[in-house]
Amino acid sequence: MNRLIWSQLDEAARSAALTRPVQTVAQQTRDAVATLIAQVRTQGDAALRAITARFDGVDLQDFEVSDSEFAAAEATVPAALRQAMVEAAERITRFHKAGMGQGYAVETAPGVVCERMLRPIGRVGLYVPAGSAPLPSTALMLGVPAQLAGCPQVVLCTPPRADGTADPAVLVAARLTGVQRVFKLGGAQAIAAMAYGTGSIPASDKLFGPGNSFVTEAKQQVAQDGVAAIDMPAGPSEVLVIADAGANPAFVAADLLSQAEHGPDSQVLLLTDDAAMLAAVEAEVERQVALLPRQDIARQALSASQLIQVESLADAFAISNRYAPEHLILALREPRDWLGQVQAAGSVFLGDYTPEALGDYCSGTNHVLPTAGAARAYSGVSVASFQNLISVQSASAAGLAAIGGCARIIASAEGLDAHERAVALRMEVAA
Amino acid sequence: MNRLIWSQLDEAARSAALTRPVQTVAQQTRDAVATLIAQVRTQGDAALRAITARFDGVDLQDFEVSDSEFAAAEATVPAALRQAMVEAAERITRFHKAGMGQGYAVETAPGVVCERMLRPIGRVGLYVPAGSAPLPSTALMLGVPAQLAGCPQVVLCTPPRADGTADPAVLVAARLTGVQRVFKLGGAQAIAAMAYGTGSIPASDKLFGPGNSFVTEAKQQVAQDGVAAIDMPAGPSEVLVIADAGANPAFVAADLLSQAEHGPDSQVLLLTDDAAMLAAVEAEVERQVALLPRQDIARQALSASQLIQVESLADAFAISNRYAPEHLILALREPRDWLGQVQAAGSVFLGDYTPEALGDYCSGTNHVLPTAGAARAYSGVSVASFQNLISVQSASAAGLAAIGGCARIIASAEGLDAHERAVALRMEVAA
Repeated sequence: MNRLIWSQLDEAARSAALTRPVQTVAQQTRDAVATLIAQVRTQGDAALRAITARFDGVDLQDFEVSDSEFAAAEATVPAALRQAMVEAAERITRFHKAGMGQGYAVETAPGVVCERMLRPIGRVGLYVPAGSAPLPSTALMLGVPAQLAGCPQVVLCTPPRADGTADPAVLVAARLTGVQRVFKLGGAQAIAAMAYGTGSIPASDKLFGPGNSFVTEAKQQVAQDGVAAIDMPAGPSEVLVIADAGANPAFVAADLLSQAEHGPDSQVLLLTDDAAMLAAVEAEVERQVALLPRQDIARQALSASQLIQVESLADAFAISNRYAPEHLILALREPRDWLGQVQAAGSVFLGDYTPEALGDYCSGTNHVLPTAGAARAYSGVSVASFQNLISVQSASAAGLAAIGGCARIIASAEGLDAHERAVALRMEVAA
Repeated sequence: MNRLIWSQLDEAARSAALTRPVQTVAQQTRDAVATLIAQVRTQGDAALRAITARFDGVDLQDFEVSDSEFAAAEATVPAALRQAMVEAAERITRFHKAGMGQGYAVETAPGVVCERMLRPIGRVGLYVPAGSAPLPSTALMLGVPAQLAGCPQVVLCTPPRADGTADPAVLVAARLTGVQRVFKLGGAQAIAAMAYGTGSIPASDKLFGPGNSFVTEAKQQVAQDGVAAIDMPAGPSEVLVIADAGANPAFVAADLLSQAEHGPDSQVLLLTDDAAMLAAVEAEVERQVALLPRQDIARQALSASQLIQVESLADAFAISNRYAPEHLILALREPRDWLGQVQAAGSVFLGDYTPEALGDYCSGTNHVLPTAGAARAYSGVSVASFQNLISVQSASAAGLAAIGGCARIIASAEGLDAHERAVALRMEVAA
């Protein structure tokens, strides 16, 4: 990890310190993804079979998980894991349900009622990665809000394993959230299939979920094509920790490492106003990383990461808001007092006993969050991500009389005569 | 307009009937926009001056509207127009304010509190077109929710007129909503400037507003680059009217025309279960279009538009949901009874006395709405469009004890050991 003293950096060095590891998608990746998408679009299931054979090494005739495979998954998953997922799903449901928006109506003028209705998005597609490891928790994070929104068509894609089956824990998680249709399909081909539809995979209006650079690029391309919306742009995972002198260096180090183990391009940042804390965390990271099975990945991520000494905690929050981290851990004595300073972040963890892993799995918040600075203008997945807001207005003859003149004046100023006449004509008849 | 009987169409003909006029962006447009963006990105204000001279025919040294130009605008705009905009802004404010989300907190387990905070997006850029005519109403529709959200930095770009000034009504509308910084800059160059920033125009985190195909393509390209988020993909405006036998053909025709006059690529659709109504509307359209100053534009739009006879109103709603119109007018005797059938639309207008123009200007709802079928998965602009949702969690030692085991089990199942240890370490210390 790099040790920096913020006050000694010029603007260029500060900017460099906050720059994420390379995010630019290689032209090669873009082209490869475009080719895969075109194949799926034109050749449908045949293309999916060929691509799956090539990349996943399995020949699949049917992509859809059968009832017997679901039953086998239920029999395979350890009871403790199933129970943990049930509990996690309950808390995720409780938190997400409490935040659901409501329709409303307002009389904006006598006889003019404006309303907002909420409707589930009709057809949604969920992607659950299984790269270095399957992520049943992601199935919960996507399936719960889809279920709460009431989306009538929900499909889930997850890569097949070498034996042609899907990860049992992912299947159990999917069923816990009411997802009935799961397809063994990964990568850009899964995104293309859910966007355009094939003989066996229905098309979706919106696609959700994290993934590797191919999945991410495929989501961008289908969104750009206008065929399906996506939840958010995605990038490597990241955490920023703000620690004061009273923080526990072992805890902070453990949090930095739990982010670093995600992948070699993950980024972790520590900001502290205490030089001794910075040194202590660095020593702890060294000690703990050696104990990790995934230490190679973690060490790569750490090499691009920063330990930054700041002059004050207020400076730390200004830097954090500029960086807009996916995860923000406040390892502070009075973290709640500082919450008002947080302007841009995906999810915030308060105090010594709230490791990021709680939010990743089971506190109740969503773990599908904006990365790469997208937290400046995007939010994590919530039930609202699975809903459309539709506005409605209704004017009586009196209502039209009350506001029609206003509409006519502005329409005329904009040179839109037919707009003006559509109002005037009614006002004449209604008068 | 084309007259069709839905029950007589095969699936291919139905699909063709609901296909929007060409939306594919020409490669030439894509390339031209990419070039403009690159110029603005690398050469900043110098590029903006050269491009503005070329496209708008004016040499501007300063793009920012000065205090004296604002004052001149106030003196120029007719009192009736100013008053209409004041009233419109009040109703837009009332409706949008009533729909603002709230933060909340839930104890998801004893000692575990999960929360959601709302924060304004820090830096937003608004685009107000002035192609065939300036659109002060769009300044209201974007400025009001930005102000309600409390965005600390709001800039607005609108194209300069031939004399180098901005449209006075747009300036007055901007100031009515608290927007202080307006730049005379249009097209793709305005989008590039607001996304990347230049010497004189500050960078934004999210860009809003409609525009021509260059503006729309520029928004897509900067969003794809990850430098700024955008409100939604945009396309030509459109309306779908569902009329029953009791509708007023003159009203329906006026509504179809007020959409058609927007541009030659606008699309209008009428669905009715009454053959006589269909014929009557067609005759009325012919009669009314001849009276319009913009009849050339309207006629072009009408040539790609459809009058469709359906067997039942239920069929009409199914077709409408499939099409997902930007504007949906329910020219029905009991429109509210049918509202539950609406699954995907931008904004809905109920009954005979609610012409679309009311929503365009002054009912209170927003007129920046999803087009081109995007209403299947996108919503119109609201205060939420200008806010970030940030989740927060806080566990006490007891809370960690309550749910830490759950997190550890799932982390282990996912092979993420550092996640598991970050929890275990704290549980040991806390115990």
